[in-house]
Amino acid sequence: MFQDFKLVSDRPVVIQVKEYVKRLIIKGALQADQKLPSTREMSGLLKVSRNTVIAAYEGLEDDGYTYAVPGKGSYVAAMVGHLAADNGEGVGSTAWQIDWKARMNDYAVSAVDLDVMKQGIRAKKGTISFTSIAPDEQLFDLGDVRRAFLDRMAIEGQTLLNYGYAKGYKPLIDYLMCYMENKGVDITGKDMLITSGFTEGFDMVLSALRPSARRGAAICENPTHHTAIKNLKLQGFEITGIPMERDGIDVEQLEAVLQTQTNSFDLAYLTPSYHNPTGIVLSPEKRSAVMKLMRRYQIPVIEDGFNEELRYSGAHVAPLIATVGQGNGVIYIGSFSKVLFPGLRVGWVLGDRALIDALESIKRARTIHTSTIDQSILYQYFLNGNFDKYVKKARAEYKRKYELTRACCEAHLPEAQLSGDGGLHLFLTFPAGVNTRQLLEACTKQGVIFTPGDKFFIQEGEGTNTLRLGFSRVTDENIERGIQIIGNQASSLLQTEKKNEVSS
Amino acid sequence: MFQDFKLVSDRPVVIQVKEYVKRLIIKGALQADQKLPSTREMSGLLKVSRNTVIAAYEGLEDDGYTYAVPGKGSYVAAMVGHLAADNGEGVGSTAWQIDWKARMNDYAVSAVDLDVMKQGIRAKKGTISFTSIAPDEQLFDLGDVRRAFLDRMAIEGQTLLNYGYAKGYKPLIDYLMCYMENKGVDITGKDMLITSGFTEGFDMVLSALRPSARRGAAICENPTHHTAIKNLKLQGFEITGIPMERDGIDVEQLEAVLQTQTNSFDLAYLTPSYHNPTGIVLSPEKRSAVMKLMRRYQIPVIEDGFNEELRYSGAHVAPLIATVGQGNGVIYIGSFSKVLFPGLRVGWVLGDRALIDALESIKRARTIHTSTIDQSILYQYFLNGNFDKYVKKARAEYKRKYELTRACCEAHLPEAQLSGDGGLHLFLTFPAGVNTRQLLEACTKQGVIFTPGDKFFIQEGEGTNTLRLGFSRVTDENIERGIQIIGNQASSLLQTEKKNEVSS
Repeated sequence: MFQDFKLVSDRPVVIQVKEYVKRLIIKGALQADQKLPSTREMSGLLKVSRNTVIAAYEGLEDDGYTYAVPGKGSYVAAMVGHLAADNGEGVGSTAWQIDWKARMNDYAVSAVDLDVMKQGIRAKKGTISFTSIAPDEQLFDLGDVRRAFLDRMAIEGQTLLNYGYAKGYKPLIDYLMCYMENKGVDITGKDMLITSGFTEGFDMVLSALRPSARRGAAICENPTHHTAIKNLKLQGFEITGIPMERDGIDVEQLEAVLQTQTNSFDLAYLTPSYHNPTGIVLSPEKRSAVMKLMRRYQIPVIEDGFNEELRYSGAHVAPLIATVGQGNGVIYIGSFSKVLFPGLRVGWVLGDRALIDALESIKRARTIHTSTIDQSILYQYFLNGNFDKYVKKARAEYKRKYELTRACCEAHLPEAQLSGDGGLHLFLTFPAGVNTRQLLEACTKQGVIFTPGDKFFIQEGEGTNTLRLGFSRVTDENIERGIQIIGNQASSLLQTEKKNEVSS
Repeated sequence: MFQDFKLVSDRPVVIQVKEYVKRLIIKGALQADQKLPSTREMSGLLKVSRNTVIAAYEGLEDDGYTYAVPGKGSYVAAMVGHLAADNGEGVGSTAWQIDWKARMNDYAVSAVDLDVMKQGIRAKKGTISFTSIAPDEQLFDLGDVRRAFLDRMAIEGQTLLNYGYAKGYKPLIDYLMCYMENKGVDITGKDMLITSGFTEGFDMVLSALRPSARRGAAICENPTHHTAIKNLKLQGFEITGIPMERDGIDVEQLEAVLQTQTNSFDLAYLTPSYHNPTGIVLSPEKRSAVMKLMRRYQIPVIEDGFNEELRYSGAHVAPLIATVGQGNGVIYIGSFSKVLFPGLRVGWVLGDRALIDALESIKRARTIHTSTIDQSILYQYFLNGNFDKYVKKARAEYKRKYELTRACCEAHLPEAQLSGDGGLHLFLTFPAGVNTRQLLEACTKQGVIFTPGDKFFIQEGEGTNTLRLGFSRVTDENIERGIQIIGNQASSLLQTEKKNEVSS
């Protein structure tokens, strides 16, 4: 025994010795009431200092794995045995097995079925991937983040590490309320809840507003954010999609649907700026028209503030929640995950005070509160003025890539219709015959992947001729090369298509 | 105009100027196509350098709030107006109002009703409060936390700030799997999901296992953790509580219930070590007996690993999940929130691989993933060997306070029965006549508060003669003084009680 002890370099030796002996006890190699080698012997056996062994033995006793007999040494303490061993039977054969799959409910099964990450395309090394719309981490100003953390720790210290409040970190709430006021929002009668990103906020709002007695009904842009489709479905909502036009949702169709199905929608989910996946900005005229309809039919609006910061041209556009003044019909959900650091899980819900009060209790019941470290780093980062500096840099870089991607698409994919006024991606619509799943298959063989657009559509079979190109994390060279490859494959597909038409 | 600009000291001046002008535009004090003062004029008006104004003006243009006319200056851009203003009506009078309370479902209403934090006792300044069982933040070793953050940032940098994985931060999962193996768990066939603390893990497990077609049924210790009661109720479970004895759950009663209600429980929720609120450790014999029953009746066990690290005496006790070998009937939920830093929202669920796979999708649908910063700080803190050092220190300090609290209770509250073998609190049971809500009312007037025990019981009207004393954040002096006051008030209550008995 004690021959297989191996030191690693990056952990304190005392802990390695302690855990090594603990393992021997757990595995039964050292048994109850067995005497451990003396500290001097053990020091020789493991080739570590005797003081190290003394400290490790103390630790084992503190943890209840051993007991000391004064003047004699350390002995292994008795432990509660395994259940199977109690029966005198082998562990493996009689181990208690539950069929978990059979016990999981519809919600759990749907969560797996709708989890697109699990059906995601696994890219080989060297593949040019246009699937991500996460920010480019090379732009992150680590020094500023580090300083924000140290500054805040210096000011608040221990407090940051103990329990915080379900509603959120107060200085951040105050800051973000001001941030939203600067977007033109009248905050009278409104309040804010900090969440762990957009998704948590959206899921909690749906949990609170989903009707108890029947399936819910939601209306949204079609296509739309696939996570939102997933969460609506998981919460039992029927979804009615309204087609997108070049300047946002088709208002006539929206009105037609609302007229024929009066009183039947529990909520609307809308992404008015740099919509996902189309990248379209809802025009000022349409904003006004949409909001008048929502008000007339009394349909609460969940506004996704997605990517609002990544505006490359045109005038400032106020969010929908800014258009209703002191009205409380809009719930705005914001996040900096596309522009700043998604690893910091921070988002916010801004809405009517009574609603936020209920959401606060739901938040407390679900996760107690959002990480205080994340919230306080973000707050200090803003306070230090880093955000403005960073957004300026990020916007310049993404704008460059956006223009490059656009230009490459226009050169190599002339048959595709482009959309995307900002943000980190473009959306392409091919002539009806082109199936982008087929195109993806062909491109994957050539080392290029993208996101087929059908998964952003409400009904199966829609949008099979569309795709989303995320450019934020692709190098200039790969943007050019990748789009050229997609272009070549699309041309072949289109030619085959034409031949088939002629021959049929 | 421009007279009310006031500089604050802790923010960059450029940003203050930019936000000041932005506000004037938002409020309508500066209107569309109005010319801004020249940078030279503005510099004089605001008493800041001209370079600052130039930079602020650039920022306003970047954000789309203004536009530049070459050779002429900066002009205010047109913005999408408020909806009410479109109608030519005042904002306040016609603002769109939704009655959110009427739209909230049973879940949201229950979340508020069951939110004990909202009914919490607000303590006046100077009150001695025994209500908290959060760790004492004075023990936190800030320097080590800071170093863990900086070490990890130096190693992984930007990666930590971009999206992570729903399952959790890989190095932390590996570390915690090893940590659980060191507690005697056979991890074959098992897997782990990192959550934002115990509560999220518990809520997700309940969401996955709650029956779709009928109300669920759960069995647990009575009393038990009030957050667990809340979450079970919120997820629609009927709860059957089994009384506690000095060495844990009453096994005979448990067996009797299981025999009469065969096949009727979907799960059991148990806290075998330093149970909340009683502080009792389930004895080795009973652990074995409980697990045999659970296996016989095929009831999955959710084990709450709460406070397992705060053991002050006795041998090491393995968790229930360690007693089933390769069996998969136990789901262990762990967290360091009571021993380490609750502000870092990190917990874990260890259980059958198929179950964890479904929970991973639920986690992704709810919050994408847990804060990578929190996870990586915790991981590096362990790796640096800080945890062992800290637990040793914390355990010594809490043990001292625990013994002091016990001694004070024995001296001043001789009529109360004490329980609590470790952790951060003691549980007191008074003779049946003493109502601890009444006692609390009397003590509050004397500047002392505690948690009445009834809220830990399943049925209303149970445990009205019990209370929980959390000592972790109370000074020695206040422990003595506070318990003395509780003792005096309890004596008066008991005497009144006796007089009533005599006179009736």
